[in-house]
Amino acid sequence: MRYFVRFSYRGTDFHGSQSQPNAVTVQQTMEEAFSLVLRTPVALVFAGRTDAGVHARVMVAHFDFPDSLDERLHRLAERLNSLLPASIAIYDIWQVPDSLHARFSALSRTYEYVVCLRKDPFWVGRAARVAPDMDFEAMNRAAQVLLGTHDFSSFCRTQTDVQTKVCTLTEAQWQQVGDVWVFRITANRFLRNMVRAVVGTLFEVGRHRMTQQAFADVLEACDRTCAGQSAPPEALYLTQILYP
Amino acid sequence: MRYFVRFSYRGTDFHGSQSQPNAVTVQQTMEEAFSLVLRTPVALVFAGRTDAGVHARVMVAHFDFPDSLDERLHRLAERLNSLLPASIAIYDIWQVPDSLHARFSALSRTYEYVVCLRKDPFWVGRAARVAPDMDFEAMNRAAQVLLGTHDFSSFCRTQTDVQTKVCTLTEAQWQQVGDVWVFRITANRFLRNMVRAVVGTLFEVGRHRMTQQAFADVLEACDRTCAGQSAPPEALYLTQILYP
Repeated sequence: MRYFVRFSYRGTDFHGSQSQPNAVTVQQTMEEAFSLVLRTPVALVFAGRTDAGVHARVMVAHFDFPDSLDERLHRLAERLNSLLPASIAIYDIWQVPDSLHARFSALSRTYEYVVCLRKDPFWVGRAARVAPDMDFEAMNRAAQVLLGTHDFSSFCRTQTDVQTKVCTLTEAQWQQVGDVWVFRITANRFLRNMVRAVVGTLFEVGRHRMTQQAFADVLEACDRTCAGQSAPPEALYLTQILYP
Repeated sequence: MRYFVRFSYRGTDFHGSQSQPNAVTVQQTMEEAFSLVLRTPVALVFAGRTDAGVHARVMVAHFDFPDSLDERLHRLAERLNSLLPASIAIYDIWQVPDSLHARFSALSRTYEYVVCLRKDPFWVGRAARVAPDMDFEAMNRAAQVLLGTHDFSSFCRTQTDVQTKVCTLTEAQWQQVGDVWVFRITANRFLRNMVRAVVGTLFEVGRHRMTQQAFADVLEACDRTCAGQSAPPEALYLTQILYP
């Protein structure tokens, strides 16, 4: 039987989401807890991977288990939460059809990138600081060229094993939320490092060091060296994953 | 000439606001930075003291300086911010009449106490966690007896040097804000440990271990041993100070 898990984590304490040797990752930490509580090795399939330092307000994963967990589901989340570190929280666990896949069935993912315009002790390690004269309107105009279906090679780490770098974006916009600005970006899929490369390049536009046309040219070029530096990871949050 | 400073700090890194020997405090850290930048010893008078671990989204202090800082005021905040640790941020510095006093002229202070009802990696060290069945309506009914002018001896640390423990409360209410609950309390003055003692005792009401009448009796008793435990400091924020 297949189960979905909805959870969140603060990326600060982890070397990314995906298991790798010699580094503490979210996946490894969670698999250890699940295996301990369910008394059998449990493999989790994440909806996606997040880079080191990137947070997830919502992440989804699936796992398969031979028996029905029905009556144990509520207690299971509780027991996992008491076992897992404070930086990971399990919200729900529920049964799904075997055909549903946390990664391949996801229709869209949404990320949010948070910046603050002045020194703020309560956003340290949780947002990027930018100059107060950052031109958000210019960034919003430039970001419009990202909407629709494009090859995002210019905004992808060069060493990656995906077969295609074509993504379909449905949302890419800066909005003021309280005392911070948030860039919300939604796509059917994201490439490694993509949001941070997009945001870092938009910063160049916001600082008037790159024109709107030059930003469009970066996308066209399909060459990572054309884009700006990656924006820092600690300000990036995975916030939504949609399923059919 | 007298200047007011508006600033914020994350209390986690400090042993309270007020200078004391052998401990890093907000006041000492700020006085060192001010003295360095203004090249003369600067003494700051805070609007109030906060306990170890308590945050201030807004704190006000005053200092006296022999010369006019008029043209240097904007640059002064900038230089102080780059010198001060990430956990303290200066917002504004402005000249006031010599008769205005950061502590004695303040008309009211507002504190907020934040609790979350489930495990949340993004509120660790910034909110207190309470059971999801906490009865906020019961706490709000009980809190009403605090409004008006009363002797708050029951909610004050016993070792304190104030002459009177009479305070006038104008606001004391729990409200849901997003995924957390916030207790907002406003008074002309607060005694040491007062908000945390009030919140800790209200928790007893919210858990149905204390009736509304018993809570009113605690206030009447004027005896600290009648009240509940102090709620943890890391969830408490000084958020507003009003002047004439």
